[in-house]
Amino acid sequence: VPNISPQELIAQDLQTVEAYIRSTGEGAGQPLAGMIQSVFQAGGKRIRPTITLLMGHLLHAPMEPLIQLAAAIELTHTATLIHDDLLDNAEMRRGQSALHQRHSHAIAVLTGDYLFAQAAVLEAAHKNPRTMERFSGMLSTIVRGEMEQLVHRGTLPTMAEYEQRIFAKTAAMFETACACSALLADASAETLAAAEQYGRQAGMAFQIVDDVLDFFGETGGSGKPDQRDLFQGVFTLPVLLYQQKNPEDTDLISIRAGQSDEATLRRLSHSIQIGGFLQDALAKAEEYSDSAAQSLADFPINTYRSALEQLTREIVARKV
Amino acid sequence: VPNISPQELIAQDLQTVEAYIRSTGEGAGQPLAGMIQSVFQAGGKRIRPTITLLMGHLLHAPMEPLIQLAAAIELTHTATLIHDDLLDNAEMRRGQSALHQRHSHAIAVLTGDYLFAQAAVLEAAHKNPRTMERFSGMLSTIVRGEMEQLVHRGTLPTMAEYEQRIFAKTAAMFETACACSALLADASAETLAAAEQYGRQAGMAFQIVDDVLDFFGETGGSGKPDQRDLFQGVFTLPVLLYQQKNPEDTDLISIRAGQSDEATLRRLSHSIQIGGFLQDALAKAEEYSDSAAQSLADFPINTYRSALEQLTREIVARKV
Repeated sequence: VPNISPQELIAQDLQTVEAYIRSTGEGAGQPLAGMIQSVFQAGGKRIRPTITLLMGHLLHAPMEPLIQLAAAIELTHTATLIHDDLLDNAEMRRGQSALHQRHSHAIAVLTGDYLFAQAAVLEAAHKNPRTMERFSGMLSTIVRGEMEQLVHRGTLPTMAEYEQRIFAKTAAMFETACACSALLADASAETLAAAEQYGRQAGMAFQIVDDVLDFFGETGGSGKPDQRDLFQGVFTLPVLLYQQKNPEDTDLISIRAGQSDEATLRRLSHSIQIGGFLQDALAKAEEYSDSAAQSLADFPINTYRSALEQLTREIVARKV
Repeated sequence: VPNISPQELIAQDLQTVEAYIRSTGEGAGQPLAGMIQSVFQAGGKRIRPTITLLMGHLLHAPMEPLIQLAAAIELTHTATLIHDDLLDNAEMRRGQSALHQRHSHAIAVLTGDYLFAQAAVLEAAHKNPRTMERFSGMLSTIVRGEMEQLVHRGTLPTMAEYEQRIFAKTAAMFETACACSALLADASAETLAAAEQYGRQAGMAFQIVDDVLDFFGETGGSGKPDQRDLFQGVFTLPVLLYQQKNPEDTDLISIRAGQSDEATLRRLSHSIQIGGFLQDALAKAEEYSDSAAQSLADFPINTYRSALEQLTREIVARKV
């Protein structure tokens, strides 16, 4: 087997996906077209379309619907990011001129809406009721999850609540991408279930790594502000693992009592980092990614399966 | 024929539509469920589901998909209203606490997103690729139209631009509702075209009347602030008709030059009202509504057709 990365294996398909995304922007008229272009030119790992395409190839999904699915997944992901950032930015941009805020809010809301609509256009083009059903259900799950996270800011979730949150936030889309690839391929119920499981577990691993990387902040190369989650009151796996070992920690008790000032959060972050809880969280991500790879056990052995296995390792090893 | 209103004719179906909408809220978890409940309890004319149901009955569409379609239409309409109000409120709520603004913005964005997602869930339940395609295309049209209106605030549109705007804002949804009803009924291409035309023309009439009612403001009983459109720089049919007759009007010249202070707008509004241009705009709405009724000419003569004809008259006669 030549040493080729998962992305290289489907490089040409990914280019076609980008062409679909570009044409979404081009048909939108200004200023939507400009907004969409700048959003997608800013890059992104395209991990979701990559997984979609690899799974589709592995299961012999028809090409055009598969490409449309991958594009619809990336459009939907980007739409949720735009609306999410808007909610976050409202906080971070305090003090900027109201006019600027209002303008960017309005355009951000509508740009996100437009990408949702265009994702639905691509999904409808499949003429496949089952993928449509999965796709729209996924969108509901994601929005419910965002709302949950929004209203529970500042409170420590239980482990079950955390898992539910990262499922809604990330794993639901990975799962749906794989499920829809399998549905386009007209796969058996067993194959569909295995594909779903691959996506779900890979998505859980991906989000846990994201949550761990947040602790490294800008020094980790992600370009995100330092420990944004923690300081916005979003408590993730490293905090929960720390809590399991240190239930009587005074900083945690303050946070549970609703007192999470900056000094408390800085101390907590330091305790988590020196206590090795980021490594513990990564070990949990590795469990998920191993389990994702294992769910491919009954699939044919070929370059696409190898690439999907490789991706699970990359998800855990990534630094950004 | 007994003297029964269009709404009474399908009262039971409308109740089923409300039940679908309620269950959308109930499945959402808090605080989404509460938001959704309050939005829909606030009322609304339900003109879109009414037209959808009447057209579906007239063409013998199967009942369950028809109800789902009517609910999906109303959910989508409400989602666009919520996002629209958010854009408007950003302007109107200046001076309120940033926290309150941020909170309501975030929740408004997500509530709208959730309603879009749930509309897609209902649409997907049809398992009808053609309605799905129409529906997602409509959503793109609506968002493009909102963006157009947003970026062209303060500028006078041409008549063609105005017609395009009200098509995107309102008539596209009326048209899609009728088209999807016809598609669910497996109607012929001719019947589909006639149903679409009914919806489009009725929608154009509806929006023109809306635009005229805006000039009456609160005194017209709509509960909206006085002449909101005009003072937000959204120029509608009465302004354009006034302009056709008074191209050299100095207030209009100021507005075209980008100088639309309050005194200018008040003078313009007064000139429009005393010059009879609101009546002229209503006459144009009547043309559209007559044309809507005429597009039913080849349909079977029964209570549903009568109700759809009656609706076109009510659209023009309405005071709120």
